[in-house]
Amino acid sequence: MSLNTFGHLFRVTTWGESHGPALGATVDGCPPGIMIDEEMIQLWLDKRKPGTSKYTTQRREPDQVRILSGVFEGQTTGTPVQLMIENTDHRSKDYGDIAEKFRPGHADITYWQKYGIRDYRGGGRSSARETAARVAAGGLARAALQTLAPGIEIQGYMTQMGPHGITGERDVSQIEQNPFWVPSAETAQTWADYLESLRKSGNSVGAIIEVVARNVPPGLGAPVYGKLDTDLAAAMMSINAVKGVEIGEGMAAAMLTGEDNADEIFMGNDGRPVYSSNHAGGILGGISTGQDVVVRFAVKPTSSILKPRQTITKSGQAAEIITKGRHDPCVGIRAVPVGEAMMACVLLDHLLLHRGQIGQNRGKIG
Amino acid sequence: MSLNTFGHLFRVTTWGESHGPALGATVDGCPPGIMIDEEMIQLWLDKRKPGTSKYTTQRREPDQVRILSGVFEGQTTGTPVQLMIENTDHRSKDYGDIAEKFRPGHADITYWQKYGIRDYRGGGRSSARETAARVAAGGLARAALQTLAPGIEIQGYMTQMGPHGITGERDVSQIEQNPFWVPSAETAQTWADYLESLRKSGNSVGAIIEVVARNVPPGLGAPVYGKLDTDLAAAMMSINAVKGVEIGEGMAAAMLTGEDNADEIFMGNDGRPVYSSNHAGGILGGISTGQDVVVRFAVKPTSSILKPRQTITKSGQAAEIITKGRHDPCVGIRAVPVGEAMMACVLLDHLLLHRGQIGQNRGKIG
Amino acid sequence: MSLNTFGHLFRVTTWGESHGPALGATVDGCPPGIMIDEEMIQLWLDKRKPGTSKYTTQRREPDQVRILSGVFEGQTTGTPVQLMIENTDHRSKDYGDIAEKFRPGHADITYWQKYGIRDYRGGGRSSARETAARVAAGGLARAALQTLAPGIEIQGYMTQMGPHGITGERDVSQIEQNPFWVPSAETAQTWADYLESLRKSGNSVGAIIEVVARNVPPGLGAPVYGKLDTDLAAAMMSINAVKGVEIGEGMAAAMLTGEDNADEIFMGNDGRPVYSSNHAGGILGGISTGQDVVVRFAVKPTSSILKPRQTITKSGQAAEIITKGRHDPCVGIRAVPVGEAMMACVLLDHLLLHRGQIGQNRGKIG
Amino acid sequence: MSLNTFGHLFRVTTWGESHGPALGATVDGCPPGIMIDEEMIQLWLDKRKPGTSKYTTQRREPDQVRILSGVFEGQTTGTPVQLMIENTDHRSKDYGDIAEKFRPGHADITYWQKYGIRDYRGGGRSSARETAARVAAGGLARAALQTLAPGIEIQGYMTQMGPHGITGERDVSQIEQNPFWVPSAETAQTWADYLESLRKSGNSVGAIIEVVARNVPPGLGAPVYGKLDTDLAAAMMSINAVKGVEIGEGMAAAMLTGEDNADEIFMGNDGRPVYSSNHAGGILGGISTGQDVVVRFAVKPTSSILKPRQTITKSGQAAEIITKGRHDPCVGIRAVPVGEAMMACVLLDHLLLHRGQIGQNRGKIG
Repeated sequence: MSLNTFGHLFRVTTWGESHGPALGATVDGCPPGIMIDEEMIQLWLDKRKPGTSKYTTQRREPDQVRILSGVFEGQTTGTPVQLMIENTDHRSKDYGDIAEKFRPGHADITYWQKYGIRDYRGGGRSSARETAARVAAGGLARAALQTLAPGIEIQGYMTQMGPHGITGERDVSQIEQNPFWVPSAETAQTWADYLESLRKSGNSVGAIIEVVARNVPPGLGAPVYGKLDTDLAAAMMSINAVKGVEIGEGMAAAMLTGEDNADEIFMGNDGRPVYSSNHAGGILGGISTGQDVVVRFAVKPTSSILKPRQTITKSGQAAEIITKGRHDPCVGIRAVPVGEAMMACVLLDHLLLHRGQIGQNRGKIG
Repeated sequence: MSLNTFGHLFRVTTWGESHGPALGATVDGCPPGIMIDEEMIQLWLDKRKPGTSKYTTQRREPDQVRILSGVFEGQTTGTPVQLMIENTDHRSKDYGDIAEKFRPGHADITYWQKYGIRDYRGGGRSSARETAARVAAGGLARAALQTLAPGIEIQGYMTQMGPHGITGERDVSQIEQNPFWVPSAETAQTWADYLESLRKSGNSVGAIIEVVARNVPPGLGAPVYGKLDTDLAAAMMSINAVKGVEIGEGMAAAMLTGEDNADEIFMGNDGRPVYSSNHAGGILGGISTGQDVVVRFAVKPTSSILKPRQTITKSGQAAEIITKGRHDPCVGIRAVPVGEAMMACVLLDHLLLHRGQIGQNRGKIG
Repeated sequence: MSLNTFGHLFRVTTWGESHGPALGATVDGCPPGIMIDEEMIQLWLDKRKPGTSKYTTQRREPDQVRILSGVFEGQTTGTPVQLMIENTDHRSKDYGDIAEKFRPGHADITYWQKYGIRDYRGGGRSSARETAARVAAGGLARAALQTLAPGIEIQGYMTQMGPHGITGERDVSQIEQNPFWVPSAETAQTWADYLESLRKSGNSVGAIIEVVARNVPPGLGAPVYGKLDTDLAAAMMSINAVKGVEIGEGMAAAMLTGEDNADEIFMGNDGRPVYSSNHAGGILGGISTGQDVVVRFAVKPTSSILKPRQTITKSGQAAEIITKGRHDPCVGIRAVPVGEAMMACVLLDHLLLHRGQIGQNRGKIG
Repeated sequence: MSLNTFGHLFRVTTWGESHGPALGATVDGCPPGIMIDEEMIQLWLDKRKPGTSKYTTQRREPDQVRILSGVFEGQTTGTPVQLMIENTDHRSKDYGDIAEKFRPGHADITYWQKYGIRDYRGGGRSSARETAARVAAGGLARAALQTLAPGIEIQGYMTQMGPHGITGERDVSQIEQNPFWVPSAETAQTWADYLESLRKSGNSVGAIIEVVARNVPPGLGAPVYGKLDTDLAAAMMSINAVKGVEIGEGMAAAMLTGEDNADEIFMGNDGRPVYSSNHAGGILGGISTGQDVVVRFAVKPTSSILKPRQTITKSGQAAEIITKGRHDPCVGIRAVPVGEAMMACVLLDHLLLHRGQIGQNRGKIG
């Protein structure tokens, strides 16, 4: 990972600002022969697209992706794939105020201090809009995974909104049925009520997203600094507003004893190891075990709120700030497809890395 | 970060196995003219050294570091610094059993599956012994920080051991006074009792470590994938047994509203911004604000325990495993200086990166 | 350097195929505050543009660059700069024949063998058209150099076309006066006659290009694998059709004795070292001396010629091939601005790297 | 390539100074399961070892390599391999004079200007002694190639010493029979006489080395900036004293027409393409063709000579310099095994990269 690029072999460089002409992802290292077209990528972008429910920003963007290179006759060629999304609905007038005032909890002040110049329109580069490019790259990564490691399924959902966790049994069939991607119809209703009142009061709230990858082959990950969990932690922490990342048991692992934390191992009927539990989140020593890979991350509440907050201006004057514009009351909602995209990119990257380093798994069991 | 190297410009490659002849860190990119000698690095290694109290592994290692290159007449020259630590106390007989059986919760099985060969003696490359090399590199990074950004202080301590958090007021003066680096004399006693009983029963337990960096200049960090928090998350997650990483408010940020999470900004008497709180953990948009940088990480309990657990052998047979040898009942204790070392390396790396990209901060306030 | 990216801190990723919708350069790591607009970049693209004389391909491309990101109110912001050039004149019908047959001396066969798919239209990714993206990135690099190291001048010119070197005295004022960028009016005429007859016979020819950078500060370069000459060699060798790279005396250094090759050192009147000669080409130990940095590279003749050559088809059948289409009889001509662009990118990259690693030169003389 | 590391997946970081305690190579990314021991590596080091004939430096170094990590029971484990060579014969007294004076044509002055500190003893980091570490790493790369791509043969030899090329027919069986690795007994005698007189006069001379790799599979190389020839150019140019690099026809490609330069293609009896010639040096579009990969590089004469030269001191005073000590009259001789080592490392690296990106060649012919 360096500056605006992530990945070792499947390298994604995102570019673009919220209110510039376009943004996108330059993807280098995608294997050749992957079937892909704009529709396959659009599918995932539509999931993240703003303005789909009243709980997300009302900015209207078609977020239409164009493939400008690297694909020929419906297949990748092994050369860089340029994925571009043009910005269409950028009403710059909404943002005039933040040219001078720094929003508390926002990158306004640090960009200014570091660079001495910032495209303040819509947050510029620090806008969550950057994540559209990640979702596009993730769509390509998913297509490649489908070819190279068929069976891998990646699914994200929310598990916490502000004070509210999931109540009752989890039901994955509900995930696509509500605007929060929460696996519980009952919880979706609670959250809807809560968020509606929050939105009306001009406030915002944080969230926790969990992303699971199923049928990941064992052996992915490169100790000791290119571990699968290291790269997942970096990938998720790089998403706007993320403040914490957990693998498997996560922070709660601190509370467990070694006896309780041990995922005991047995031989399955198919001649492959099975585990009594998955505290490890599918990763041991930085390498995938073959169990579900489980990652969670916390998204802080957006700092662009109608509630007045104290701040300062560029010239150092005290000021009160109220951010109008069109903002997400719970930006975590749109982080779900972003987390999925990052998971897809990291898994593909490690699949290629593993193939390069090792060829294929070398140790047989039994 | 890639494979066994981390860092963009201050690049640390660690090498070596638990029971090989030696291990160490090859450090490339250390600026020239930094005053350094073996004693300055030894200081930090001694802090991490095994066998210093009954709560850590009884393996006796002097962990004596040698500087083999890159230093001339007491100063770095700008060429690679090789830091080598010879292994002396490696009783291979202790580990014979684990050549065949996989410890649940340990990298034994994944290394085997991936590589088809593993140096099982003492965990080989996956041993926490690798972290000695990190601490040595961290010692060099601290010396460089002292020259290039005087005033930065890095301090780690434990905040949780199994079910026990810190009770009462925090008192940083206590950190160096107890074997747990916990800022509370009262808590240290509680933990001592708890850990003693755990150790006797052959069990182990997890922990949470917090590392704080004070007087970090604003402007460090490179959005959007080389963010300061991204690199800290990767650095901490790459430490053995870590399952979660938090910046500032961490996972709890999900529970907050935007109103509560906003760190309001004021002008300080010295003409620099001050903040009403530090939910952000000193980082906004991936760039340091000038507030304390606060990172926490959770270490799972070591999987090498005397409690019998079910597992399988390389040939796929069911087996029970008890790990004798000399293990840490709470490996989190020795993770404290490791977390500090990673913080030092990441901060120095971003200081150099900032200097390269930007020169110096460009935006003035006031 | 890796795959489609080059540079350590000023990282240029080029993307796009000869006959796709567009091509461009994603530039990451450009410092903030550099004055830039599309016209400043267009200037250099126009120099490389096809169809400007009868000696270059008659393909008509406006090669109009658009800046899609990273620039705000006329200045770079420190975020990625996307430079896009749309392809307009791509007559695919010209290239139908080469879908099946491999041109001898061309990448057709190796791309096919490696990838199993290739965008054969106009050479796809292996087309010299890719170098337009380099020239665009080079334009940005020049603007940054102008701010960060004013005084650096980069000039490329041809010194050899087929059997013809430069006759008579070199006169740099002539470089911009002829279509070959050769510093000699007399030579320009000889070459014009030679190339005209070659073009008529449907043949092509190779060339040598020299690029000089003046007023380069001493101290740039990072031994031992990030040397300034190492990176220049890689940069030039990565240009299409280049088969050799020389620094200073180049291959002829083999003929010299140590006595003759020594550039003797004296103190100049301005308190800076001066040298009796420049066999070193301005680089010692991989680090710039402050003398002119001198690089030469040889470009082979284009393999797309009207002369019939023996080859095979994808199905392994023997075949004769004649390449019609619109090709450069001496592709070296258009390599001049490309070589300049690579020089600009490498120098800027090392300037930033030096600043990051060292801050500023540390050793004074006198 | 960055600073002291080269390679994408097979990453070699060399460290150490001429007169420090030790030097070596930290090799990350070597695949597991490669049979290796110290003797296999020693074989190549002995070839490069100083003091083997009167034509190389009389410094006596056993250059005994030790493997400190990454190898278990005679096989690589996939973890970093540390190769260390201790310095034993470092008579610092020989070098006192160069602490103050800069040798013309040597890195003395640039290291000083850049870093403000340099280990002047024996040239420190800029000494050709660094190449011992490359040869050690190359020995490991050769072992890996033997397993992963059996049949590849790498052979280096000298083709030019000062004014003398090879006279008469080339006879590869002679390469190991003379101290110059020249494929001609007659030439060896001429060179011996020439070099002896040069050595006596205290002078030195340059050389050209050619390295050929046979039986390289087609498909290695990653356009457009990770081309096989790009990485070979960088690898060779990074060797001390190298001033030019050529692939196949090299600089002479400039003299050829497209008709002459075309390596015509035919189907061989074994169903694989064969070529009428090899102007391309086995590489088209940055990807190997399956023909011999042919690289040449020029080494300038060493600047440490007994002939007096004009220079300046650190304090800016004019001075005359004569370098005593023990130097190679033709440092190109010992560059032969170094060139071979770099070829081995680059080929292995691209083999792994190809495997990661592509899996295996995808396009069949016939």
